[in-house]
Parts: sequence; C-alpha cells; structure tokens
Amino acid sequence: MTLTAIIDGTRDALQADAGNGKVSFNVSQELVGVTEVHGTAGSGHRIVVDEPPALGGTNAAANPVEYALAALGSCQVITYRVWATHLGIKFDSISVEVEGDLDLRGFFGVDPTIRPGYEQVRVTLHITGPETPARYEELRRAVDEHCPVLDLFSNQTPVKIDLKVG
Amino acid sequence: MTLTAIIDGTRDALQADAGNGKVSFNVSQELVGVTEVHGTAGSGHRIVVDEPPALGGTNAAANPVEYALAALGSCQVITYRVWATHLGIKFDSISVEVEGDLDLRGFFGVDPTIRPGYEQVRVTLHITGPETPARYEELRRAVDEHCPVLDLFSNQTPVKIDLKVG
Repeated sequence: MTLTAIIDGTRDALQADAGNGKVSFNVSQELVGVTEVHGTAGSGHRIVVDEPPALGGTNAAANPVEYALAALGSCQVITYRVWATHLGIKFDSISVEVEGDLDLRGFFGVDPTIRPGYEQVRVTLHITGPETPARYEELRRAVDEHCPVLDLFSNQTPVKIDLKVG
Repeated sequence: MTLTAIIDGTRDALQADAGNGKVSFNVSQELVGVTEVHGTAGSGHRIVVDEPPALGGTNAAANPVEYALAALGSCQVITYRVWATHLGIKFDSISVEVEGDLDLRGFFGVDPTIRPGYEQVRVTLHITGPETPARYEELRRAVDEHCPVLDLFSNQTPVKIDLKVG
C-alpha cells in the first residue's frame, strides 16, 4: 500500500470514529549495570542505553538525553514525509541535526534554580527538492503543528509516577 | 573510579566553577526510507528509527514516540542509581515500565483541538532492596526533582527550528 493510501485510509477511519485514534505505546526497561539499561519497546525492538565514563557508565550505548534528541529529530523528518505526501509537496532528501544545551548543576542538585533538563534545543533541517521555498515553508508550518515529539518538547505532558517497593 | 568518587568529584568541579556544568548533546539523522531514519549521536552510537507498516514504515526499529518513552524510563532508573549513591540509599534492583497515550487525530490533523503528542504518560518503577519504604520515597522525591528527561516531559523546553532549503 502506498503512503498516500495509508494516510487517506487512516484519516477516513479517524473521521468515521474518533475512537480509532486512541493508541498507546510502551517500553519496559531494567538497570543491568552501573548505568546500563536494557529494554524492549512494545514494537518488539530492544533499546540499550548507557552513560559515558564521566557519568559512571561504560558508553555501551547512547544516553537518555541523546535518545530524547533522536526521538525529536526522527519525528521531525518522518512528519515531513507524511505531511509532504498529504499536501502533495515533493522533496528529494531531508536530514536533521538536533543539539541541546544542559547545565549539569541541575542534575547533580548543586543549584536548585537550574533545571535538570535541556535549557534550549536547536533543530536544523536540510531539505532538497523541486518545490519553491514558499512551499517548503508551508510544509514546515504543517509539520511543526503536527509533530508528536516536538509537541512533547514544547509543551507540558502530564506524567504519573508510581514507585512499587519490594 | 567508583560512582561515589565520580559524583563527589563532579559536584566539587561544579561548585568551583559553574561553567563546568555547561554541556551539549547532539544527534545527526537522515531519512533513508519511507519512514526509516538513520542517525548518529555525539557519543558515536548509531540510532535507527522507523514506523510500523500501519504508518507507512517497515518496522525496522522502534518509532520516535517509543524512543521518547525509552529516554524517560532509562533516565529515571539512571537517576535512581546516581541519587541513591549520593544519598547512601542501597537497592538491589530497579526496573521500569513507561506507557503513553496518544490520539492519532492530532498527528493526522483531523481535529485541531487534539494535541499531536502524548496526552498522558504513566511510569511504574519497581525497586527492591534493604531500605525502608520511607527511604525509597525520599529517593523518589530526589530523583523526580533532578531527572533531566522527566523535566523535559513535564515542562516546556524552548526549541528553535531552522529549515534550510536546497
């Protein structure tokens, strides 16, 4: 099935019954080393996470804040693909660099006024293709309104945490 | 070097010069298939992302919103490790399940009142060890104040996006 057919079919199904839009994603993970974490996503894929030696790990894999940036960058370019297809905007290639600035005084609790997470994130996209810059700007606006992980970064998401002891 | 020595040394360095806390993380990624994305993090690790067939992909890897949950779960358990060490709280094992609910009407633009990202995220942690439940509750409070990716989910992060055409 073409991506156009998938998009049209999904939009029809969502318009017919809003309940079709309700989906859940999940991941299960375990600390297996000093900072090494092994896990499996609901899609069945294994995901390994670790920290560099400067943070006590062995650099067995990318760390959590790198994965967060990778989630954002990949969500951006996939949303470009889906919305370009939906809007009939052609492109030849798209790539992205994502960079985030963090102040470790937050994570280590050295200064309670410093947030532990990213203070700023920069996304640089490179797109090539036959359309006018104005059409790509139109695409960019559509993507930035509909990109799930950009929404996660840019807005507050309610997180409910349950700690089970024993 | 033990994790205790790393934490103490890092805190000393951060207290001596706030500039030592300023770090950046990055990732570079490219769309290589319909929705398949290949990338490399600053730490040198490759990260592959894809969507399932229902979203036009080939399920070559976990998708962006699964990676976002994996970033949160791994950041939680690593922050448990670091803060347990710092506070002198012992534990034997820690694992986590992270689940997020999303309404696809947001991503597909079927209803502009629906956000494209997660509407709610649930984190369930399982910890075992020799300490009292009150000590683990103290640890949980410290973790939730200092976990970088929990901060990213729970609060707004400024994202600057630059689209380069051609």
